[in-house]
Amino acid sequence: MNLKVGQTASFGKTISESDVYGFAGIIGDFNSIHINQVEAEKSIFGERIAHGFLSGGLISTAIGVYLPGPGTIYKSQSMNFRRPVKIGDTITATVAITEIINKEKGLYRLETTATNQSGEIVIDGEAVVKYLG
Amino acid sequence: MNLKVGQTASFGKTISESDVYGFAGIIGDFNSIHINQVEAEKSIFGERIAHGFLSGGLISTAIGVYLPGPGTIYKSQSMNFRRPVKIGDTITATVAITEIINKEKGLYRLETTATNQSGEIVIDGEAVVKYLG
Amino acid sequence: MNLKVGQTASFGKTISESDVYGFAGIIGDFNSIHINQVEAEKSIFGERIAHGFLSGGLISTAIGVYLPGPGTIYKSQSMNFRRPVKIGDTITATVAITEIINKEKGLYRLETTATNQSGEIVIDGEAVVKYLG
Amino acid sequence: MNLKVGQTASFGKTISESDVYGFAGIIGDFNSIHINQVEAEKSIFGERIAHGFLSGGLISTAIGVYLPGPGTIYKSQSMNFRRPVKIGDTITATVAITEIINKEKGLYRLETTATNQSGEIVIDGEAVVKYLG
Repeated sequence: MNLKVGQTASFGKTISESDVYGFAGIIGDFNSIHINQVEAEKSIFGERIAHGFLSGGLISTAIGVYLPGPGTIYKSQSMNFRRPVKIGDTITATVAITEIINKEKGLYRLETTATNQSGEIVIDGEAVVKYLG
Repeated sequence: MNLKVGQTASFGKTISESDVYGFAGIIGDFNSIHINQVEAEKSIFGERIAHGFLSGGLISTAIGVYLPGPGTIYKSQSMNFRRPVKIGDTITATVAITEIINKEKGLYRLETTATNQSGEIVIDGEAVVKYLG
Repeated sequence: MNLKVGQTASFGKTISESDVYGFAGIIGDFNSIHINQVEAEKSIFGERIAHGFLSGGLISTAIGVYLPGPGTIYKSQSMNFRRPVKIGDTITATVAITEIINKEKGLYRLETTATNQSGEIVIDGEAVVKYLG
Repeated sequence: MNLKVGQTASFGKTISESDVYGFAGIIGDFNSIHINQVEAEKSIFGERIAHGFLSGGLISTAIGVYLPGPGTIYKSQSMNFRRPVKIGDTITATVAITEIINKEKGLYRLETTATNQSGEIVIDGEAVVKYLG
């Protein structure tokens, strides 16, 4: 694939309770805000929210599966967590190539964003990847 | 908890095949490098490797469960992926408070690192959190 | 940690459908009362209920992670199942040291209780642990 | 089913790494003895061991699925943890009716044992169940 500035790809998923529970069960984050409805109702969020890295993971899927896709080596990722993600929210990760850092070395910069079903940004940031495919 | 520069916390886990498969199943990243041994053997890694966000997730657990722990609001995270993580590697996430950005607003900067069983850095970067607890 | 009579710790979680299904999938208890809504509606419970050992497992987490925590060797556990736990119930396991059986050998007795979101006891019983930490 | 003293049933399973990891992920017990090979090697066990409640869960499966089976209401369970269970061990839970406590009320006492592939007892104890089927 010949990569150009401006190319974009998206991947979206409705975040289920089983996603949040399974994610907690893998990374070990059983903070009550994620898995205890009684405690979460007392928090500023008012209900259980997804782990930031779960929504962030959708960005990594957009990069690893779609753009640039298979063969990509992930060099770095920054994320600003802008809004909470609740169980049942549909999160769409969008990645866009913003810079060809070094064509010979295959280094590219991408703008990476995750939005919810209302179009609000929940995560923004950027990634650098290596892709020689 | 009164937070001070220099405080640290760690959380470690041996990354199992079931972790990688479960993680793929939640975030949707079925890139063959993670879940296809035949294809992975042909890659530069020579075997299946864990998703970068899986090791990164251990950092978020160290922050959300241990330091600062419950009550923390995650503002941002940057990650540089330095080395691949193979199935069976034991990854330890360590977080250390490096700066009190604004005590009234409860903003803190942390150095965040993930190392493998040989002490090699697999991820470095930093986080900013809000904590008023 | 110097253990004293009266010390307590708690760990709570909202029991999700995915918890019950995952638990069934590990221990192999596919009794219809747990995973068949049609059959469960005909039972005296009127809906699917969680495995008693799932709620009981939260007690073991409270012991193994919090009190006494890492280093504990579990010697025994008794459980009386007092009430059914339904999908969506939030169960809190609370453990309290009630007796120092033998300080040199590190043997302690704990009262172990699991309650639901209404404060009703779903499990009571006691544990004996060895802890030399 | 007409229950008699002396009736027995068994259920066995080889405990996989994914069982231990999945179990940790549901009950929230990420004690390093279960999921961190590097730390577990430093412990008195020398390697990762299964949660006691995972082996105990096989007892509840033997009761809930086989004897007395569907329709059983679990009243109580006691467990003495005699030996550690390692990943790869094959654990067989055996339950035997030892007493008809009250036939009209359907109350029965069972001896409950879990053994490993060498025939060593890893858990013993007893259960009381209600069964009117």
